[in-house]
Parts: sequence; C-alpha cells; structure tokens
Amino acid sequence: MSHPAPLAQPLAQKYLDVWNETDAASRRRLVEALFTADAAYVDPMMTGRGHPGIDAMIGAAQQQFAGHRFALHGTPDAHHDVVRFSWRLAAPGQPPVAIGTDVVVVSADGRLAQVTGFLEAAPAA
Amino acid sequence: MSHPAPLAQPLAQKYLDVWNETDAASRRRLVEALFTADAAYVDPMMTGRGHPGIDAMIGAAQQQFAGHRFALHGTPDAHHDVVRFSWRLAAPGQPPVAIGTDVVVVSADGRLAQVTGFLEAAPAA
Repeated sequence: MSHPAPLAQPLAQKYLDVWNETDAASRRRLVEALFTADAAYVDPMMTGRGHPGIDAMIGAAQQQFAGHRFALHGTPDAHHDVVRFSWRLAAPGQPPVAIGTDVVVVSADGRLAQVTGFLEAAPAA
Repeated sequence: MSHPAPLAQPLAQKYLDVWNETDAASRRRLVEALFTADAAYVDPMMTGRGHPGIDAMIGAAQQQFAGHRFALHGTPDAHHDVVRFSWRLAAPGQPPVAIGTDVVVVSADGRLAQVTGFLEAAPAA
C-alpha cells in the first residue's frame, strides 16, 4: 500500500480539521470518518482508544487550548501505510505554543488505525 | 510504561550497533536480543519481519552501503512505549549519504516490536 505525497497532504489536513472542529456532534462524526473503530492514539501528554476515547481526548485538548488552531507545518511524507506530518498549534496571529510531529498508520479502508505523536516544542503556557 | 531520555539514548545506540555489526553470526545474535520474534520493520526502501527477515534486510543494506557506519544524530526522545531517534549513515570521514528518523515501539520485555523509519535525506549515490 502506498500513500504518495499528493495523498499524504489531504489526509494530514483532514486529521487537523478534526482537531479544529469544536462542534461536538460534528467532531464526533469526523472522528468516526477518520479513525478505525479501535484506533489507538498516543502522544507525550494524552492517550485515547476508539471513537469515544479519541473524541473525548480531542475535546479535552480543545478546552485546554481554547481559541487555538492546528495547522500543517512543513510537508507531509509517506511510504507504505505510514504518513508523517508536522503541525503547529497557535492562537490567531500569535506564535505557536506547540509544534509536533505525528506518525499515523493507515488501515486498508483508508482510515487511521494508529497515531503516535511527538512534541518538537513544549507549550509555553 | 515510560522510557525517559536516559533510557532512550542507549536503546537507540544498541539499535544502531546492530546495523553496524557486519559479522553475520554476531549480527544475528544482536537481532535476536534486540527485536521481538515477530517484530515488524518498515522504511521507505525496505521491509522485514521476524528475526530472519530483519537480519537478512540489515545484511542486504550493509552490502549496499559497504564501509559505511550508522551514528546517532541529535538526541532521542521517548514517551510511553515509543522512542524516536535520528541517525546518519556515512563512510569514515565523509559527509552522510543519508539521514533518517526511526520511531520504535518497545514491547513489555524491552525488545523492539515495531520500527517505522523515515528518510530525511535520500542517499546521494
């Protein structure tokens, strides 16, 4: 299975769109569309599993960083069933409070089965 | 499970030591000590599974890059059961022909269950 860069970029953007969706019902629908039912998420600060677990985790992060938005940082790369991309988290017009890199495993149905996140810069707050 | 930086660094070095071990019998012993029996490896150019598969893959890479050595590049980071580190591949006294980043999943017994590799710079040759 191959995910060339032209596919990696929209997938990464779709992923960040979920993190930026603050309407609870819409976010849950996006989570179900993007992640497999038993998807596993882990980063230095949070873990989540399955649609309810990942949705609750994202909701908690949105409360912690209210008014902030995720945006792609640099260019995603991909090979086999793996996509890697970096992101930044910032309030509008402000420098980022965090920059991170996520490695995601794409399942056969195109949804994300595994997300492993790393922080390049810790939140300033 | 947590792997703070002091443990990540020797683990990453032990991993690169396997890639630098060109004696076939020694390399196989190091592979068995470092990887779980059904460990999976994937990078943009190679895949391998299990001790025989990963050992053969490393042996093939050593033939392709004869005389080159892997060295740590920057500082490993880690959280939960995941370690991330970068490496460079170079002939002695020469600039690197490749720089990469590996994300590894550590099993409960301390051995590597999964390696996902990325290239930061493609080999010049």
